[in-house]
Amino acid sequence: MSMNSTLVFSPLVFGVLGLLMALGLYIKTKLLPNGNDTMNRIAGYIREGAMAFLFRQYKVLVVYCVVVAVVLGLSLGWDAAICFVLGAFLSLLAGFFGMKAATFANVKTAQAATSRVKSAALLVALDGGAVMGLAVASLGLIGMVAVYWFYADRSNLGTVLHAFAVGASSIALFARIGGGIYTKAADVGSDVAGKVIENIPEDDPRNPGVIADNVGDNVGDVAGMGADIYESMVASIVAAMALAMAATVDNAPKLLLDSGASLESQKLMGVLLPLFLSAVGLAVSIVGIFVTRMLKNMNPAMVLRIALIFPAIALTGISAVLMPMLGVTQDVTIAIGVGAIAGAVIGLVTDFYTSASPVKKIAEAAKTGAGTNLIRGLAVGMESTAIPMIVIAGSAWISNHYLGLYGIAMAAVGMLAGTAIVMTVDAYGPISDNAGGISEMSGLGPDVRAITDELDAVGNTTAAIGKGFAIGSAILTVMALFSAYNAEVNHARQVAGLAPLNLVVTEPNILIGILIGSILPFLVSAWTMVAVGRAAGAIVEEIGRQFREIPGLMELKAEPQPDRIVDIATKSALKEMILPGIVAVVVPPAIGFTMGPAALAGTLVGSLAVGATLSLFMANAGGAWDNAKKFIEKGGLPGHKKGSDVHKAAVIGDMVGDPFKDTSGPAVAILIKVMSVVSLLIASLIALR
Amino acid sequence: MSMNSTLVFSPLVFGVLGLLMALGLYIKTKLLPNGNDTMNRIAGYIREGAMAFLFRQYKVLVVYCVVVAVVLGLSLGWDAAICFVLGAFLSLLAGFFGMKAATFANVKTAQAATSRVKSAALLVALDGGAVMGLAVASLGLIGMVAVYWFYADRSNLGTVLHAFAVGASSIALFARIGGGIYTKAADVGSDVAGKVIENIPEDDPRNPGVIADNVGDNVGDVAGMGADIYESMVASIVAAMALAMAATVDNAPKLLLDSGASLESQKLMGVLLPLFLSAVGLAVSIVGIFVTRMLKNMNPAMVLRIALIFPAIALTGISAVLMPMLGVTQDVTIAIGVGAIAGAVIGLVTDFYTSASPVKKIAEAAKTGAGTNLIRGLAVGMESTAIPMIVIAGSAWISNHYLGLYGIAMAAVGMLAGTAIVMTVDAYGPISDNAGGISEMSGLGPDVRAITDELDAVGNTTAAIGKGFAIGSAILTVMALFSAYNAEVNHARQVAGLAPLNLVVTEPNILIGILIGSILPFLVSAWTMVAVGRAAGAIVEEIGRQFREIPGLMELKAEPQPDRIVDIATKSALKEMILPGIVAVVVPPAIGFTMGPAALAGTLVGSLAVGATLSLFMANAGGAWDNAKKFIEKGGLPGHKKGSDVHKAAVIGDMVGDPFKDTSGPAVAILIKVMSVVSLLIASLIALR
Repeated sequence: MSMNSTLVFSPLVFGVLGLLMALGLYIKTKLLPNGNDTMNRIAGYIREGAMAFLFRQYKVLVVYCVVVAVVLGLSLGWDAAICFVLGAFLSLLAGFFGMKAATFANVKTAQAATSRVKSAALLVALDGGAVMGLAVASLGLIGMVAVYWFYADRSNLGTVLHAFAVGASSIALFARIGGGIYTKAADVGSDVAGKVIENIPEDDPRNPGVIADNVGDNVGDVAGMGADIYESMVASIVAAMALAMAATVDNAPKLLLDSGASLESQKLMGVLLPLFLSAVGLAVSIVGIFVTRMLKNMNPAMVLRIALIFPAIALTGISAVLMPMLGVTQDVTIAIGVGAIAGAVIGLVTDFYTSASPVKKIAEAAKTGAGTNLIRGLAVGMESTAIPMIVIAGSAWISNHYLGLYGIAMAAVGMLAGTAIVMTVDAYGPISDNAGGISEMSGLGPDVRAITDELDAVGNTTAAIGKGFAIGSAILTVMALFSAYNAEVNHARQVAGLAPLNLVVTEPNILIGILIGSILPFLVSAWTMVAVGRAAGAIVEEIGRQFREIPGLMELKAEPQPDRIVDIATKSALKEMILPGIVAVVVPPAIGFTMGPAALAGTLVGSLAVGATLSLFMANAGGAWDNAKKFIEKGGLPGHKKGSDVHKAAVIGDMVGDPFKDTSGPAVAILIKVMSVVSLLIASLIALR
Repeated sequence: MSMNSTLVFSPLVFGVLGLLMALGLYIKTKLLPNGNDTMNRIAGYIREGAMAFLFRQYKVLVVYCVVVAVVLGLSLGWDAAICFVLGAFLSLLAGFFGMKAATFANVKTAQAATSRVKSAALLVALDGGAVMGLAVASLGLIGMVAVYWFYADRSNLGTVLHAFAVGASSIALFARIGGGIYTKAADVGSDVAGKVIENIPEDDPRNPGVIADNVGDNVGDVAGMGADIYESMVASIVAAMALAMAATVDNAPKLLLDSGASLESQKLMGVLLPLFLSAVGLAVSIVGIFVTRMLKNMNPAMVLRIALIFPAIALTGISAVLMPMLGVTQDVTIAIGVGAIAGAVIGLVTDFYTSASPVKKIAEAAKTGAGTNLIRGLAVGMESTAIPMIVIAGSAWISNHYLGLYGIAMAAVGMLAGTAIVMTVDAYGPISDNAGGISEMSGLGPDVRAITDELDAVGNTTAAIGKGFAIGSAILTVMALFSAYNAEVNHARQVAGLAPLNLVVTEPNILIGILIGSILPFLVSAWTMVAVGRAAGAIVEEIGRQFREIPGLMELKAEPQPDRIVDIATKSALKEMILPGIVAVVVPPAIGFTMGPAALAGTLVGSLAVGATLSLFMANAGGAWDNAKKFIEKGGLPGHKKGSDVHKAAVIGDMVGDPFKDTSGPAVAILIKVMSVVSLLIASLIALR
């Protein structure tokens, strides 16, 4: 078997291996004990609600996919349409499996916690999360290798790969925005109705909104996050492949050490390496998941931090060994390693801003009221944008120094190579959160709740880290995609015998594009925040109606109707995701076809600059407010316990932070990715304008 | 006298005319009756506090100016150092006169209101504001014409003009940030201590913070705003002149219709037109101030709106008549007109977002608590970024279509040509606000207060409009400055025999610069918000101390010590303005000299994209929260009056909005201007790196 076949073959091998492992963990988790009837009834509600949302969302997405596929078929050929559908379908498939696993792992985690053995519960939650993590990474890799294999010798390879990425992006877009609106509408709605208006505790079984809240955790943090990370991984690989394919004698990265290597073989290596190294990343993640399992008796917070850092180091080390064997320069290892380590650093910086001294300052500020609590949280969020952006800029600078723009794309690939384990740790969060909810609603007692609470607290940390990682990888991916877009435009112009487009920043069209691009993140952010508010309002109203109209509900003598809340949340989320989703997909062609490729380049730059900082700001401010509130609840401010005025001030900050961190912040990050991927896809169509 | 002499002469003539008119209004206002002793004592406190702040700020600025002048003298020559100092000095001079006028016009406005004739009080406040407005525009014009005249035939004309602009920018930077921190620290501090803790009404004479609050209005909205607008006017003119000077055969704007006109005469016309048209703008503003006086019996809100829109239309009309007489293309009229009208449109859009239906929605959202009130306000602020940015993009597109990048600079000149009247209307606000405070503290009774309240309410509208205008003009000015920076870099490279720098957006250095540039507005915003919080906290503490330690203060039997609050606010503001100020000035050379001109161009782009939207977002969200609170206070939500829970929720929004709209939002706008001006100044030094 030739070396190149090995490079193509290994993603497939590891992809299948990953899938098998996901299947194994799925069955293993499924066979675990289920707990008592009450637990199963509640878990059943959550599962039904989550799957119902997924299927209703799928219906909307099928319509969207058919429309886009027809447009693509007519404009870029039916191969592009097919690959677009494949990219979308595999994302949905991963989301489906992951959700299935998460929504039975939650009750089994609660049941494992009844054994009073923390490590047992931790393992169940991790295994449940690993199904999603492995499915996402494996299906993404398998799909891309399949597309590559099938179209390798055809002229439309680039187009079909871009179309595959657009499919992935589209699902991520709607899953993220719809899921984000759902989860926060249900959370805020049931909190306001339950804790504030009816004055009953969190996760109280009488509150009809609690089920929807738990559904929301799965819909937002499992399905939404999974589609998001899948998209980032696919897009980073596609960006690197596109840059390699569009390379010319002048700018092709010198990957093969053999000085006699032809341009063609250099380019081919450039196309294969991102796939191969992502496969290595998947292999490392599989090992990482096993290692994490073995560490189960350590402090869970530490275990999960190790799980996030380990792949970065292992991948870099393995690359350092493999590259010489492939006759490839170690510059690749540097680019990959820089990206992988940057991802871990960004995760840790996010951890700092959402848990350490900044959070204490926010809590302290609550002593003088909600206003000061909010101002301090906003300031912390704003300040937190600096280090991640500098880390990304630095990793771009280093990787560019060694390998040019291709190096930046490879840094993104390196950052996302640990997708499987990052997603595992991320999906762990909502599973243990759900486990806590189920144990509370089923009355399993404080001992069990203490275990699930500890797992849940760790889950909050990993969620913050995962969010920072997702946004950081989005920024680096967008930089790579943006470079690929420009390379593609000029490649198309070269083929047509035109001079390359001179995308000088002072070009008025670019400046105008920058102004337009810079407003899109703010608009999407505004719309999604208002959407959460609107949907939460409808939920508050319905919960109030149930308490008024169902006799005996407050006295635990009658059952609430959680399905009605689930229904409202589902309908609202699906309705509200349309406008921001359409804008993300439609703006790039609208600008590209009317104002030309330079204005579109400007639009991407403007939306990158604003979107990157805005999403970091919102995600971190939200996380910090949340933890400031929890800090007070845990007695961090002596004399100001839960229910005090200071705590109430912190609750207001948390309420503002909810849509910040789980809806608008992630929506903005996916917005800039989708815009870049769509631009890359249409680059050849608008290049000559 | 030759045509060109006319062009240079008229700015001088109108500048002197404007100064004389300012002097006349100054004397006229000074001779008006002063009111009773109590009023004079209070006004005296305010005047002393404001002037004390000014002088202490001047001390800091003298140190800064000496340091920068020496650096400039050694690197760019002593001519640059002298012009830098002149640019700074004239800004300080305008600020000094304006503050003097504002701090005696306030008490005279209150006295005029005792006559129960609204129009009389309106006129006094307007006249007081006009001193600042006319001084700012006239001194700016006179200074630039003087520099131009003196250096017209020397090779360093460009450098000295840039240095003049950097002088103007430096003062604007510190005046805006220092003033912004002062005004909001005093406002929030005395509100929290008085209204929330001690439970006494606003502007109560027992509250020792009220004087500082009134000082803050002058320090922030008169001195800070004046320096800001002065800077924008100077910078827009300098950007247009720089573009004209750096023009080559290929890109020189074809201004003279005479087809035989040489490149040199085209360039000369390009240099003179911005000065000349700004002089026309000043003349129009002078007329506008007279027209406004004649309309005194109309509804004040309408009068001030007319005052803002009139110069745009008049300037365009006059330009349409004058350009053919000068043998200049009407394309100039289009560029000037587009800019002027865009400024007015942005002002009206700001007015909409901070007073119409969006404000009602924010007030409605307060019904479900502070959290929803905040989320809605944030969303309104975010959404409000869209139309102004599109208007600016559109005006850039049109003006570029007719005159290239020079056209964009001329659009900025057009937008700022009405500086005198815009600033007049803007300074009117704090004067009538102060008048209200003085009449309350002196117990002039509800009739008088009703008049000052109405004037003040209009002042809030004009303040919002003025803020939108200031930010809009900043964005357009930055675009022009950015183009001038690039032209200057390439001019310097051409002189050195190097190829022009290809500032392609995919250049990694530019992309990295964009990432770095995009964090600066967020950092400055975070720092200034925290600074306000810190300073306000110190004020709350001192007010609390006075109420505890001064026996009889609460019973009106003893006097408070307002000077101590003034002292704390002054010291805090001066200390806190240093870090953000230094960053704005130091980052461009730091990046330019280490990473080169391309990275600096990227930094400017990143900070423009984020700074433009972030400052619009913050200013408008803040204005909207403020007015939502006022809407509830005026009975806009039946059943939820002042003091209700709904009102309290709205007060929290207003508290967050205070530093948003008056500190951080304006600070971010001035940040991007300063960075661009400094970059333009050092362009020739870093061009060859």
